[in-house]
Amino acid sequence: MLGGSAVHFAMAARLFTKVNLVAVIGRDFPKKYIAFLRQKGIILTSLIQSCGKTFKWEGAYRGDMNTASTLSTELGVLTAFRPFVSQEQRGIKYIFLANIDPDIQRCLLGHMRSPKLVVLDSMNYWIRHKRRALLRLFKKVDIYVANDQEARVLSGESNLVRAAKWLRRQGPGMILIKKGEHGVLFYSDKFIFSLPAYPTDKVIDPTGAGDTFAGGFMGYLSKVEKINESNLKKALAFGTIAASFNIEDFGLNKTAAFTIKDLENRLAEFRKCVLF
Amino acid sequence: MLGGSAVHFAMAARLFTKVNLVAVIGRDFPKKYIAFLRQKGIILTSLIQSCGKTFKWEGAYRGDMNTASTLSTELGVLTAFRPFVSQEQRGIKYIFLANIDPDIQRCLLGHMRSPKLVVLDSMNYWIRHKRRALLRLFKKVDIYVANDQEARVLSGESNLVRAAKWLRRQGPGMILIKKGEHGVLFYSDKFIFSLPAYPTDKVIDPTGAGDTFAGGFMGYLSKVEKINESNLKKALAFGTIAASFNIEDFGLNKTAAFTIKDLENRLAEFRKCVLF
Repeated sequence: MLGGSAVHFAMAARLFTKVNLVAVIGRDFPKKYIAFLRQKGIILTSLIQSCGKTFKWEGAYRGDMNTASTLSTELGVLTAFRPFVSQEQRGIKYIFLANIDPDIQRCLLGHMRSPKLVVLDSMNYWIRHKRRALLRLFKKVDIYVANDQEARVLSGESNLVRAAKWLRRQGPGMILIKKGEHGVLFYSDKFIFSLPAYPTDKVIDPTGAGDTFAGGFMGYLSKVEKINESNLKKALAFGTIAASFNIEDFGLNKTAAFTIKDLENRLAEFRKCVLF
Repeated sequence: MLGGSAVHFAMAARLFTKVNLVAVIGRDFPKKYIAFLRQKGIILTSLIQSCGKTFKWEGAYRGDMNTASTLSTELGVLTAFRPFVSQEQRGIKYIFLANIDPDIQRCLLGHMRSPKLVVLDSMNYWIRHKRRALLRLFKKVDIYVANDQEARVLSGESNLVRAAKWLRRQGPGMILIKKGEHGVLFYSDKFIFSLPAYPTDKVIDPTGAGDTFAGGFMGYLSKVEKINESNLKKALAFGTIAASFNIEDFGLNKTAAFTIKDLENRLAEFRKCVLF
């Protein structure tokens, strides 16, 4: 089914802002997916179609559903991907570098004239195999997003606050650690913020939850424009809520259809679950 | 060093209320510990000293410090313990059944005339070896407290909300799942509540954190007396904060000395870390 970091991200961020997608697909990419993305308002000017197959990932979740085991990965057209950004998109201020080879992330960032907020995601594979490239990129981003396991592996710290401090010292002013069913931890020099996940027993498919979270988070920030403590906290809450919809059904079944009203209603419910 | 569920519980609960301890110690129990407990205001009328050795536990924490590995356990006088409750204590309204053989917990509860709130804790050992006795006890308690692992094992559910619902169906009106560094999840028919832990990089010794949590939680409830949604939420926050002090140093080093003012100050800080 249709998936991928950028798509999950876009499904949530589109509720707040215009989303410009930079990505590569293969010749096999179904036309109906293009139509779907366009219909959702995603701007596809910088979507490249190359010779070869579209990236494909297959995974399974067991037990607490917090981590997927990869069954197969076919890189396809991703192997030779050089991101293209159209001239009129180079002035975009809010950049999410979804998980991919850090050299590709760096290349994309190099196209941008003067971004206001750059958020970087990665994964264990790059932490292991391209650690230096990743850490070099850290100097150029504002927020590094990681799951708890990635934060621990990269920093060598098992305590997450200590891991966040270590990551902060590598460059990014803000660190965002996603803990799956346990919520998120946000760290900056100015404040620490911790939010549980939306408590639910309806967990069907966590694939893309982290990217949906990032989409809600950045979407909200790009809408309010001012990056301050109270907006960051609210953005984290919107990200949490966006992710809670994503996991309730397979793929994009939920997030393709949800609205800002759905987010706001659940956010009000969520408040009652966490405020004292 | 001095430890044990009841003692850790008492150190936090004493900040809110008079704590009556029901327990057994051996002939080897140092007099200075008795003096210490008395000096902290703990009422020792129902503390029995028996022939034999005091219960002793030795454990180690590794990695994320969330679970201890037991190095050794010496039951000592606990093997033949029959809880004694003095006449004037039998009217006490707030009862915490700290982790011990469920038959002993049941025996103690049998002494009480008309408790208002009974909170039950247990552990994997009893879940495995005395499951039926434990589940029978469920019918007589108001709140069952478990850590995430215990909740999963007992219910057979990996999702914690589903686990809480299963546990609720066994009897207790309220379920409290402690998730260590990830905070707590509270479940009742009326509302769900989720609170992260106090974010800290100072984790020296988590032993007794769960009991300290329970002590702060129940201490606050017994002080305000009214068991309603808003008091329960505040009690969970006080429990969280009490536990955050416990883990900052070995044994009782922190909780023997902290004050209600310390709790309130950190609670105010905590609010800034979780409210949006």
